[in-house]
Amino acid sequence: MDKSEIIRLLEQYSRGELKLEETAEQLLASGLEEMGFATLDTDRHRRTGIPEVIYSEGKTPQQLADIAGRLHAKGIPILATRATREKYEMVLKQIPGAIYHELARAIVYRREAHAPSKKYIAVVSAGTSDLPVSEEAAVTAEFLGSRVERIYDVGVAGLHRILSKVEELRKASAVVVVAGMEGALPSVVGGLVGAPVFAVPTSVGYGASFQGLAALLAMLNSCAAGVSVVNIDNGFGAGYNAALVNRAPAAETEPR
Amino acid sequence: MDKSEIIRLLEQYSRGELKLEETAEQLLASGLEEMGFATLDTDRHRRTGIPEVIYSEGKTPQQLADIAGRLHAKGIPILATRATREKYEMVLKQIPGAIYHELARAIVYRREAHAPSKKYIAVVSAGTSDLPVSEEAAVTAEFLGSRVERIYDVGVAGLHRILSKVEELRKASAVVVVAGMEGALPSVVGGLVGAPVFAVPTSVGYGASFQGLAALLAMLNSCAAGVSVVNIDNGFGAGYNAALVNRAPAAETEPR
Amino acid sequence: MDKSEIIRLLEQYSRGELKLEETAEQLLASGLEEMGFATLDTDRHRRTGIPEVIYSEGKTPQQLADIAGRLHAKGIPILATRATREKYEMVLKQIPGAIYHELARAIVYRREAHAPSKKYIAVVSAGTSDLPVSEEAAVTAEFLGSRVERIYDVGVAGLHRILSKVEELRKASAVVVVAGMEGALPSVVGGLVGAPVFAVPTSVGYGASFQGLAALLAMLNSCAAGVSVVNIDNGFGAGYNAALVNRAPAAETEPR
Amino acid sequence: MDKSEIIRLLEQYSRGELKLEETAEQLLASGLEEMGFATLDTDRHRRTGIPEVIYSEGKTPQQLADIAGRLHAKGIPILATRATREKYEMVLKQIPGAIYHELARAIVYRREAHAPSKKYIAVVSAGTSDLPVSEEAAVTAEFLGSRVERIYDVGVAGLHRILSKVEELRKASAVVVVAGMEGALPSVVGGLVGAPVFAVPTSVGYGASFQGLAALLAMLNSCAAGVSVVNIDNGFGAGYNAALVNRAPAAETEPR
Amino acid sequence: MDKSEIIRLLEQYSRGELKLEETAEQLLASGLEEMGFATLDTDRHRRTGIPEVIYSEGKTPQQLADIAGRLHAKGIPILATRATREKYEMVLKQIPGAIYHELARAIVYRREAHAPSKKYIAVVSAGTSDLPVSEEAAVTAEFLGSRVERIYDVGVAGLHRILSKVEELRKASAVVVVAGMEGALPSVVGGLVGAPVFAVPTSVGYGASFQGLAALLAMLNSCAAGVSVVNIDNGFGAGYNAALVNRAPAAETEPR
Amino acid sequence: MDKSEIIRLLEQYSRGELKLEETAEQLLASGLEEMGFATLDTDRHRRTGIPEVIYSEGKTPQQLADIAGRLHAKGIPILATRATREKYEMVLKQIPGAIYHELARAIVYRREAHAPSKKYIAVVSAGTSDLPVSEEAAVTAEFLGSRVERIYDVGVAGLHRILSKVEELRKASAVVVVAGMEGALPSVVGGLVGAPVFAVPTSVGYGASFQGLAALLAMLNSCAAGVSVVNIDNGFGAGYNAALVNRAPAAETEPR
Amino acid sequence: MDKSEIIRLLEQYSRGELKLEETAEQLLASGLEEMGFATLDTDRHRRTGIPEVIYSEGKTPQQLADIAGRLHAKGIPILATRATREKYEMVLKQIPGAIYHELARAIVYRREAHAPSKKYIAVVSAGTSDLPVSEEAAVTAEFLGSRVERIYDVGVAGLHRILSKVEELRKASAVVVVAGMEGALPSVVGGLVGAPVFAVPTSVGYGASFQGLAALLAMLNSCAAGVSVVNIDNGFGAGYNAALVNRAPAAETEPR
Amino acid sequence: MDKSEIIRLLEQYSRGELKLEETAEQLLASGLEEMGFATLDTDRHRRTGIPEVIYSEGKTPQQLADIAGRLHAKGIPILATRATREKYEMVLKQIPGAIYHELARAIVYRREAHAPSKKYIAVVSAGTSDLPVSEEAAVTAEFLGSRVERIYDVGVAGLHRILSKVEELRKASAVVVVAGMEGALPSVVGGLVGAPVFAVPTSVGYGASFQGLAALLAMLNSCAAGVSVVNIDNGFGAGYNAALVNRAPAAETEPR
Repeated sequence: MDKSEIIRLLEQYSRGELKLEETAEQLLASGLEEMGFATLDTDRHRRTGIPEVIYSEGKTPQQLADIAGRLHAKGIPILATRATREKYEMVLKQIPGAIYHELARAIVYRREAHAPSKKYIAVVSAGTSDLPVSEEAAVTAEFLGSRVERIYDVGVAGLHRILSKVEELRKASAVVVVAGMEGALPSVVGGLVGAPVFAVPTSVGYGASFQGLAALLAMLNSCAAGVSVVNIDNGFGAGYNAALVNRAPAAETEPR
Repeated sequence: MDKSEIIRLLEQYSRGELKLEETAEQLLASGLEEMGFATLDTDRHRRTGIPEVIYSEGKTPQQLADIAGRLHAKGIPILATRATREKYEMVLKQIPGAIYHELARAIVYRREAHAPSKKYIAVVSAGTSDLPVSEEAAVTAEFLGSRVERIYDVGVAGLHRILSKVEELRKASAVVVVAGMEGALPSVVGGLVGAPVFAVPTSVGYGASFQGLAALLAMLNSCAAGVSVVNIDNGFGAGYNAALVNRAPAAETEPR
Repeated sequence: MDKSEIIRLLEQYSRGELKLEETAEQLLASGLEEMGFATLDTDRHRRTGIPEVIYSEGKTPQQLADIAGRLHAKGIPILATRATREKYEMVLKQIPGAIYHELARAIVYRREAHAPSKKYIAVVSAGTSDLPVSEEAAVTAEFLGSRVERIYDVGVAGLHRILSKVEELRKASAVVVVAGMEGALPSVVGGLVGAPVFAVPTSVGYGASFQGLAALLAMLNSCAAGVSVVNIDNGFGAGYNAALVNRAPAAETEPR
Repeated sequence: MDKSEIIRLLEQYSRGELKLEETAEQLLASGLEEMGFATLDTDRHRRTGIPEVIYSEGKTPQQLADIAGRLHAKGIPILATRATREKYEMVLKQIPGAIYHELARAIVYRREAHAPSKKYIAVVSAGTSDLPVSEEAAVTAEFLGSRVERIYDVGVAGLHRILSKVEELRKASAVVVVAGMEGALPSVVGGLVGAPVFAVPTSVGYGASFQGLAALLAMLNSCAAGVSVVNIDNGFGAGYNAALVNRAPAAETEPR
Repeated sequence: MDKSEIIRLLEQYSRGELKLEETAEQLLASGLEEMGFATLDTDRHRRTGIPEVIYSEGKTPQQLADIAGRLHAKGIPILATRATREKYEMVLKQIPGAIYHELARAIVYRREAHAPSKKYIAVVSAGTSDLPVSEEAAVTAEFLGSRVERIYDVGVAGLHRILSKVEELRKASAVVVVAGMEGALPSVVGGLVGAPVFAVPTSVGYGASFQGLAALLAMLNSCAAGVSVVNIDNGFGAGYNAALVNRAPAAETEPR
Repeated sequence: MDKSEIIRLLEQYSRGELKLEETAEQLLASGLEEMGFATLDTDRHRRTGIPEVIYSEGKTPQQLADIAGRLHAKGIPILATRATREKYEMVLKQIPGAIYHELARAIVYRREAHAPSKKYIAVVSAGTSDLPVSEEAAVTAEFLGSRVERIYDVGVAGLHRILSKVEELRKASAVVVVAGMEGALPSVVGGLVGAPVFAVPTSVGYGASFQGLAALLAMLNSCAAGVSVVNIDNGFGAGYNAALVNRAPAAETEPR
Repeated sequence: MDKSEIIRLLEQYSRGELKLEETAEQLLASGLEEMGFATLDTDRHRRTGIPEVIYSEGKTPQQLADIAGRLHAKGIPILATRATREKYEMVLKQIPGAIYHELARAIVYRREAHAPSKKYIAVVSAGTSDLPVSEEAAVTAEFLGSRVERIYDVGVAGLHRILSKVEELRKASAVVVVAGMEGALPSVVGGLVGAPVFAVPTSVGYGASFQGLAALLAMLNSCAAGVSVVNIDNGFGAGYNAALVNRAPAAETEPR
Repeated sequence: MDKSEIIRLLEQYSRGELKLEETAEQLLASGLEEMGFATLDTDRHRRTGIPEVIYSEGKTPQQLADIAGRLHAKGIPILATRATREKYEMVLKQIPGAIYHELARAIVYRREAHAPSKKYIAVVSAGTSDLPVSEEAAVTAEFLGSRVERIYDVGVAGLHRILSKVEELRKASAVVVVAGMEGALPSVVGGLVGAPVFAVPTSVGYGASFQGLAALLAMLNSCAAGVSVVNIDNGFGAGYNAALVNRAPAAETEPR
């Protein structure tokens, strides 16, 4: 709750529109939705211009469907990541029209499609096995209103693959780079573009890849300057960040 | 065996109530119950005012039931943690009336309910996926006689959730905080209250959470002073510690 | 800021004792003291009953002295941990009468001595090299009003050393156990007492102790139930927690 | 080299303005400056709109001064990070007017000051010890044309410190958050703002902070969505990324 | 694309054999085969004299078969590693005559057998459990035209086993050594021969072998000079390197 | 092959009992039994007085049975560790009379029972879950001719359990101590006895036990002097070492 | 305190030779020597037949000299490990005749030389840099009455070095093997002898040796059966264990 | 000792040229030079065609000079790596004419220069800070008779730097690639050439580079096939391996 909101509440209270106890409560707990097993942050959409996204792992299908239903009832668009098909089917009962992206393991629902942004982000992957994570990034960014260009399987062992795409990369307002194994691709891309690069290490690999640790460390140590990193396999986080960068002024996007 | 007990034994021996060999044996091995595969510490209840709790993992259903039965026969209240339903059913045959807390995976039996304490502890969790660990903490503290206030799904990404509970938190005599992922919640709570905070990292998360390591390290490095930490997913340990703090003088609790 | 404080502010505002802007500001930023390089939390003393403690590492002597002086001017008792003698001498210029605990590397100043508490905590150390950390714990607890019993160099390789102290240990309201190397002592103590044990791993050792990691992991995996753990070499944290447990009802201590 | 550049070269060749061998060479090695111990990427300024920044560690003062001088001679603005005062003095001989930011350990030279951007980024730090890294971020962003708001020492153990700055944070186009120890601050900030948060773990802390590893892992596992992470103590990287986000359309900035 | 190729293209363009746009395209993207989910590097065979090898993990049977079929259609010999029998059967439909090496988990197809090289490499394994990895190395080297001598189960705990093979080892042009557990064998072999030793740590072992980490670290620290290391269980990589060393001058091998 | 054996061979050669080639072969490869997938060290029994023991993991039932059969045919006693019941049944076909120790997962066969040694070793375990590893140690030592005293479930959280067994421990010629979790028991036992203690960390525990790493590190850092450590869960290794210490002079044991 | 001692005390008490309080005290605290900063275990010599050894690191010269002096006054032989020359000189004032082993960094004093044992242990080192640790092992074993054969710089990269010593190794009653880098030597030695091998990893090496971790892991995973391991650089521990094995029956050694 | 050598010895013995005892000794210990603190492997030059190289760290200047002098006296060429200037000066007294490579920290002496090989190896470095390690590789390879092409400071953040050198790289018979930070360069080079690539991770970097661990893991996980890896900062090992590959048939080099 920022200062302007506090002042608005105080004025309401001052005008007698709010009682004392009521004012205190609202100063304390606005934008919360208590569900016993969950406390929804329904205020986030207003606060940050972005709806609360549901991380499905560790929630039962019923819990997921209940949360999605509650948000939906408040008119908030739905994105649920890491969802199985089973969970999707439970959500579908609450939100007819919800869509399931199989590869990205994501459930999406928007009341009305928005026109894709003119500016776009690029999602780049090193190998075929990185596709699920790449798609999670792409679907997330699209959910948040961004146009996405996909450039897949262009790892550094065959450099001319990425070099043939430089022009397309240079025009993106942000780039997501997804790679496992030695995680070298973000450094190469970071040296080619002037936009922020969000690097996603994946758990693709074996042995000393240690489930993505090798790629993670490589990306954190990138010798290219404009590279920041999200958690292993966190396509969602990278797509989210890229979409934040790509967003036109607030008025253009659906929220607010 | 402390000094007063030794003196009591020596006086008995001195008065001829105990033979030489007998006295030596008792000085050596009081309070042990040998079962072949297990050596029960039946003395703990008297020694520390708290009954021996059974950790069920790595024990067969039969072994668990035998141990529980033996303690039960001595009038010792039963708490068995990390128990499957299958194990519970085996215990139930020995201890009719034993209760199974599904979410907490705990078997509990007390001969007579004790009135809940006036003072209470708070069990706080960051997310919905942290519930099983949180419930293990709550059930353990309740078993040890504490009243428990549950405050669930109030992680730091929506701060107003925890801020709306400050008053309730400040009145607790100890706080258990359960969180996975980045494990930031104990630091926030530790800055808000003046009671000891027992932090439980959970294995909730993926990638660089390394099965709870990230949360564990974060909690150990908390910049808030009154925070101590137990093992990953060790809800039992935190509930136990909080209950120790909450205990009124010895006379009030059932043991002794 | 909890609900009663908000209500008090609203009532003042309602009675015209506070202006609108003023009320909003106070709702936002009470108890802050901005110093450019530092933002003091002068409200903590009131909020938690415990004054803000200064961690001296990474602060210049001048910064430390300025912060200590500012708190001192507000009548807040001073504890600065991890302070060198050089820093102490700078503080001494601002706070004549400040005391330096060489072994504990702590600067302390209280306006008036408080009578030591009747209840006490025990600080137990495994070896002679663990003394600086043990003293940091002891001095911290004493600063917070606790009586402290020191039991030093009683590691598990000569068990009768700790066994001869059981009676004294059992009467403590909380126990701090400090150990490096294999960190086994907290498990042994935890099995002997019914009070909470706060374990401090130290960086004492070499090779596979990995600067205290071995002891840290051992303590986190303690098979004794009432053991929680603080950071490696964090005597302060353990002493602080033990003192929280030992505190008589709020009225008795100096703060508030 | 992108397609339009290749076409331009081919046309020159076609018109006889470039010889065969010459064309091949230019297709191969444009924008390189070989210095024996270094191969400068003088083309980067044109390629990405951002000049090559010099990382000073592991370079002798003479090497650093030679590289800086060579770039300077080509009219490229200078930023050298992690530079000692001794290295600065060597650079000063080559580039009179170069400025040394002591706290940030950065050497800066721009031919002409640019007006600060209207939009700004915020640099937030958890503690006083995080200042050098924070300043490196701030100086870097300013070098790249961004206005910077500094919000220092507002760690999570005294939440009202950061809460009193929410309004200022919400208006920033990107936020850099610098924190050591448990690294919780980015999650809290990430939950409060709708702009991308670039988190910088620092090596501030001791024991189980493992020189910043604890903070790094915490930030990678942030439960707040818009958080990405750079290397431990890499203030430069975060300031660079934030400035990329903040940049107005290319025309506005000095480069190109 | 190296200089001679660029010159050849420029000359074609100069002679009008290539149009402007066409020349630019070819300079950019020669030797690529885009398949949506994969971007094949069909140029590698020409570029390095070695065909692209397919890593099968993380690819669906259909994807694998499609990629193999596409390469096969271009006359490129096929090696697919880490392939299950199920995947093999899918490939077989596209490439009748493809062979499956069960133990090595490799699919192989060459249009015509090449005579085995006169020079040979040796593949040495420490234990029976290291056989699958050893066979992957052997099959890879044979695919690349090398004769292979297999020396299996000659670990260091019974030294005379490896000592009885010294003569055979000394004549090899390169040696692959495969070992799990403590990974000592490459050091012993490295001390006996004058050819390069490519060491492969395996995940054979338990407990503190940490899935091959112990063997990996041991091999990296080998006190014998001519030892280099590949990833854990990476028989393919070691066989590949050994075959590169063993290759006669380019003219002799099938490629080019 | 030691000097006396070489001299014996040379004398045979000198007397013409051995041909030149033959002598060279025997100098190279005595005591080897090549089986393709395995190279048996049949000489070990003679060389070290202890038969080769078979580690069953990673071997197929057929391979195990073939190896066991081959050793059996040479009159060598059989111990196969980490064997499943399925593998046992395969071995049984080759060696009727072989015995399977279910808990220890060990197959044993000796032609004739040896009288148990007068001296004995003690096998001590901390908890019930450590029994399989403890039994592996005990069965191994018995196979090698040692009498074994088992002292189980005497972990440090109830010290009187181990204290009541001191007399028995002090008479052992070597002690095996098996513990998971914090691994404190070997330090306690090491302080009580004057015989070598072989410590076995187990993977019993969860969270920060990291599959036995915590116990391993604790044991390596034991503050008691006479403690050495074997791999996690390596009951075999500890039992083997203890039996080596317990062995009476060579003449007494079956081998040689 | 074992049973026979308890019985002896009870009989004294029974005969009136000991008072009640006195008996209780003796049952509690026999064999302790409290020094404020240290609690000496003067009973160890009697209890285990081996005197308490002083670990000098982390003790001031004065503390070390006081402890040594106190033990010396009780007629206990002195061994202080990891001692600097400066500490030695302080000890020398209290114990004229104390000897300093420079390479081993050990202070030794025995009232009377004992004849070296007939049986001997071997101390084997892989490289020249391993000498200080090797000498610590040798000096410790000699202090405890063992004859020691030193076999230095015989690492596995030149196998014939160790092979030429087999006869000498096979006659030792225990072998200490000291190695850094890949730590392969204990496996080789373990395969050659029938006595227990105590392996000492050293911190000799660089890079991925991680200060001895590589050697430590290698040794724990030794494929040779009779190998147990002590802490990195812990020559003392290995020498101590080897001497325990080598000891003739109790009567023969000086203690008791 | 291989079979032909054994046969030669046996024939000498048979002809009476060698006595029995003498023959046995020679079979055991040929090619050893015992120096007390060191056991030289003077046979290596003959055995592998490559002289023993001296690793100087952990040796005193006097020990180094003695070893170098002893090898020199036998006519063996000298290479001592990781040598300080102080050690060089001590060696110079024994071997006038020895040369010191300051940057590579290597002492070299060859009786007569050999003509550089026609074939060459390439040594490639990512950054200026990688020069010392790169030079160690280059000097080692030159010592072993290889011509070396140096290609320095061509890291992946400015790809055209390495791309402009492709022609030169493709002609090398082996390539050494030296890189710190994210260690991406070997993957890029490995994709461009058909010769074996020996990758050297360096400790250049900070924070999450963990002294070269990040680069090491990246290189081990290289998606390019022909890459093998040596220890962190081990320029010597990579240069040595590359030279082994580059060696013409034995007759051409100086040894043998």
